[in-house]
Amino acid sequence: MIATVTLNPAIDKIIVVDEIKNFSNNKIKQIKLDIGGKGTHVSSVLSDLGLKNVATGILGGYTGSILESLLGKKNIQCQFIHPPNYETRTSYIIIEENKNNHFMLTERGNKVDEKSINELVEMIIKLSSSCEFMVFSGGVSPGFNIDIYKKLIELANKNGCKTFLDASGDYLLEGIKARPFMIKPNIDEICDIIGHRPENIKEIVFHAQKLIKSGIKVVAVTLGSDGSLIVSENEAFRIYPPKVKAINTVGCGDVFFGSSIFKLYHKSTLREAFKFATAVSASKAMKLMTSEFDINEALRLLDDVLIKDV
Amino acid sequence: MIATVTLNPAIDKIIVVDEIKNFSNNKIKQIKLDIGGKGTHVSSVLSDLGLKNVATGILGGYTGSILESLLGKKNIQCQFIHPPNYETRTSYIIIEENKNNHFMLTERGNKVDEKSINELVEMIIKLSSSCEFMVFSGGVSPGFNIDIYKKLIELANKNGCKTFLDASGDYLLEGIKARPFMIKPNIDEICDIIGHRPENIKEIVFHAQKLIKSGIKVVAVTLGSDGSLIVSENEAFRIYPPKVKAINTVGCGDVFFGSSIFKLYHKSTLREAFKFATAVSASKAMKLMTSEFDINEALRLLDDVLIKDV
Repeated sequence: MIATVTLNPAIDKIIVVDEIKNFSNNKIKQIKLDIGGKGTHVSSVLSDLGLKNVATGILGGYTGSILESLLGKKNIQCQFIHPPNYETRTSYIIIEENKNNHFMLTERGNKVDEKSINELVEMIIKLSSSCEFMVFSGGVSPGFNIDIYKKLIELANKNGCKTFLDASGDYLLEGIKARPFMIKPNIDEICDIIGHRPENIKEIVFHAQKLIKSGIKVVAVTLGSDGSLIVSENEAFRIYPPKVKAINTVGCGDVFFGSSIFKLYHKSTLREAFKFATAVSASKAMKLMTSEFDINEALRLLDDVLIKDV
Repeated sequence: MIATVTLNPAIDKIIVVDEIKNFSNNKIKQIKLDIGGKGTHVSSVLSDLGLKNVATGILGGYTGSILESLLGKKNIQCQFIHPPNYETRTSYIIIEENKNNHFMLTERGNKVDEKSINELVEMIIKLSSSCEFMVFSGGVSPGFNIDIYKKLIELANKNGCKTFLDASGDYLLEGIKARPFMIKPNIDEICDIIGHRPENIKEIVFHAQKLIKSGIKVVAVTLGSDGSLIVSENEAFRIYPPKVKAINTVGCGDVFFGSSIFKLYHKSTLREAFKFATAVSASKAMKLMTSEFDINEALRLLDDVLIKDV
């Protein structure tokens, strides 16, 4: 079994307008609700690829119940902790169709009480003893300590689970101390780790290899539309994505992360896994919804994904 | 008693960010919920000015219950019709603090079933027999015919109620056929009435006087930051507002409308009523929330409001 952990999930509200005029009342053409939050996005991707999975983390209130129903529709098993008086946050993704533009507005999320955090720790201990893979992904609700990912990953590692981390800032810096199996930093998160903006790919490889030496098995660095860089003990390679016409790139990182984990769960090599993840992510970029992709389109795009050793 | 009728109310969600970066994830600094929808805004203004009032119209679902609780907190008596499976819409007002910019995104609203429309008609008949003033304001949910305001205003007029209309498009064109006591078109709505964009103030006055001859008693045309133009059987005058530093001009029209009605309810002259309304509306422009104003600030601004006959 595979489980995802989301400490600050969200509902994604996708709002489509023709074009925004400032100081004006702009009519919404279309509004859609989707699963939001990084870990829950990964769950959605795994489920869309046909892999049953469990979603856990923190969730509550009216928006929480909508999110649970969206996850349920995808046959994702929900085992969330529900803090009292806690309302799951909403992220707003605004799409300006005429300008081929989009941007996201994200709420910070509500504070989680200590009792609920303790319940979550118990849930992670329980789940990681019955799961092979556990995915920790996304920002953290106020109330958690910065070492929360470190603590949870240590517990899961101890139970023999392969752990995956996608986080940023202090949560990432603390989290990597627990030596997760794989991390997926983007370029900003690599800056968090190195302490400055790397000058070139060579410098990123150098720091990724330092992380590998510390005990992390795979470092997958996403570079936006420039693809990704994968480093393990035995190899380092860059992946160049196919050129596609993007509609909404929000969620591409989660789709990339989720589909690489899907392949690794099915014992693929790193090259196979990340080539596949790149194609699925390119398909996602062409879709309106934040975790939507077309697997047949992704399979057609596979041939246009290039891999080069670095 | 005074009643407001809102056929498509909303929750106003005010989202404050530093500045929006396109193709990016922008963190929300502050989020606030306020009463939305034009008629319910008028109720809020009347209540803030100390005038008890009844709000009726169409409302439902989770957002509807939030709106009723916001209205209740202002001591506004709620007598809404609740269609089954109907969810009150949300309007998003995005404030970019660093750029001193704002814009609004509005949902269209959900369809109202025929049974609920009939219930509303009964409610209007009942309420208008016990109210002196009835205010019809704002857009209309799908499901209503375009002559809905005409029909409701005729019923209220018949019961001896003074009726006030703020609408646009076909709803306005049909509504004025019922000869409400007062209408408050903005410049776009005047275009709806005339059929083209007027060349100058003189042309607006000419058409307003035609409306007066048809039986409407007061035509108040709002001109944005250029103030307003008031026409009745006996007079025609322009009002020039004080210069203020605007933060959020969304809702200024409703505050203007509501505070003029408040004064007319208390038997003020047209000049007194609209001078006061202009000052209150200027105070509103300096506030974040869509129906917020400071009455003391408004009273200080009164001296800076100019009136000139046209």
